[in-house]
Amino acid sequence: MTEDSILSKLRRHSRFIGDDCAIVRPRANEDLLFTTDFSIESVHFTRDQKAADIGYRALARSLSDIAAMGGRPRYCLVSLALAPWTDTRWIDAFYSGLLKLAGSTGTALAGGDLSHSGQLTIDVMVCGSIARGKALRRSGAKAGDTIYVSGPLGGWTHKPLIVPRLDLGRKLAGKAHSCMDISDGLALDLHRLCRESGVAADIETVPLLPGASVEQALHDGEDYELLYTAAEQVPGIPIGSIRKGRAGALTFAGKRLQPRGYDHTQHSS
Amino acid sequence: MTEDSILSKLRRHSRFIGDDCAIVRPRANEDLLFTTDFSIESVHFTRDQKAADIGYRALARSLSDIAAMGGRPRYCLVSLALAPWTDTRWIDAFYSGLLKLAGSTGTALAGGDLSHSGQLTIDVMVCGSIARGKALRRSGAKAGDTIYVSGPLGGWTHKPLIVPRLDLGRKLAGKAHSCMDISDGLALDLHRLCRESGVAADIETVPLLPGASVEQALHDGEDYELLYTAAEQVPGIPIGSIRKGRAGALTFAGKRLQPRGYDHTQHSS
Repeated sequence: MTEDSILSKLRRHSRFIGDDCAIVRPRANEDLLFTTDFSIESVHFTRDQKAADIGYRALARSLSDIAAMGGRPRYCLVSLALAPWTDTRWIDAFYSGLLKLAGSTGTALAGGDLSHSGQLTIDVMVCGSIARGKALRRSGAKAGDTIYVSGPLGGWTHKPLIVPRLDLGRKLAGKAHSCMDISDGLALDLHRLCRESGVAADIETVPLLPGASVEQALHDGEDYELLYTAAEQVPGIPIGSIRKGRAGALTFAGKRLQPRGYDHTQHSS
Repeated sequence: MTEDSILSKLRRHSRFIGDDCAIVRPRANEDLLFTTDFSIESVHFTRDQKAADIGYRALARSLSDIAAMGGRPRYCLVSLALAPWTDTRWIDAFYSGLLKLAGSTGTALAGGDLSHSGQLTIDVMVCGSIARGKALRRSGAKAGDTIYVSGPLGGWTHKPLIVPRLDLGRKLAGKAHSCMDISDGLALDLHRLCRESGVAADIETVPLLPGASVEQALHDGEDYELLYTAAEQVPGIPIGSIRKGRAGALTFAGKRLQPRGYDHTQHSS
């Protein structure tokens, strides 16, 4: 298994790979959206998980960011640093899982990088598009807005499959005042949204995944549901409201809530 | 040092970081170019190298790809998985080196991702732009073209500093028939260019960096000079010519040359 043999396989799935860069021709009157997400062995997944699921999830995490902006995914770059234990079968299954989700969401594989490392490391960049000036931002929440989430919460231990909320995100564009995806826990991510918007928030209730605790729903990471605020009624589960106050201040059920959540830079060992 | 404290620092250097995606507004009549390159501890650098040099080099590798297409860099996404040994001082120095090169080449820091890993891992995505349809490709080499390189070769052991050939790349756009950067060794990369173009090549001479052997110049990686072919005279060092023949076949000084080079997927241990 050599670099060129892997690239030859991938070219069957991509009309782009072959030059130093992927070439993208923008359409008129659109903005482009870029996001990139690591998936690292022993941090985001373990090697005993199915390779196809790891590939699916690596792309899904970036697609969730495109959904949070109200965008439509167009291209992805997939960078892969192989570990000593990865073999041809693993690589094939990884790309099959990733390309299945790419196909169902209209995301073309446009390139990437190949390397090696002690821990299997994946970085997926997605380029999406949206009508000019229509991207959903974190910074637009207004006092009086209702706060919504797109589904029940509880963190990664209760949610094996990420479903990027692309359809919902597109519906919210032009309606919601603010939006982001919940990747590091509701409390920390809502704190960030409120800080960007210069507002405070009161959470009244949180919808729970089966088996999840309120603590997990508030502070665990990897939910990948959308968190958004709107003055008009929009699809989703209302959980509270935005008010004037110290930027980023939160309450839950009337009590002050600490913005604790998952910190990606911290080693757990 | 928390994720949010690192992001707060970076926001001083970027008007983008803060949403789930960076938003890029394309200009009329341009194509966009995307490339991504890993820089991994013990593979692309060692931890005893200066953090500022590691940051500079991580961006320079991707800028070299933009140069190879004749483009102008516009934005970068910098993904960083911190190792247990990296501290605040290291991170500051890393970004200072990277941002210095970003500033001097007009590349705006637009976002990225933060995580952690056993080996320090960096992935830099660069988005560049070029007039519509003018990107230099690998696939345009024609029999009779002169083959050029942009500087003397010899691989990473003889070249501590990468200078992305952005000015030269832009001059070659519209003049050269084909172009790529030499990252995996002249022989392997010229083989790839010829394969894409359906032609063969004869190398007559290779310009050497001080102290480098012909073997290193042909088969060592990490040169980051441009390799290009043109029918008209263009700036650079002529090293041979393109001819009809089996796609990808090479000779050096009249003898058959194997397309050996650096393979990024192979563990050296």
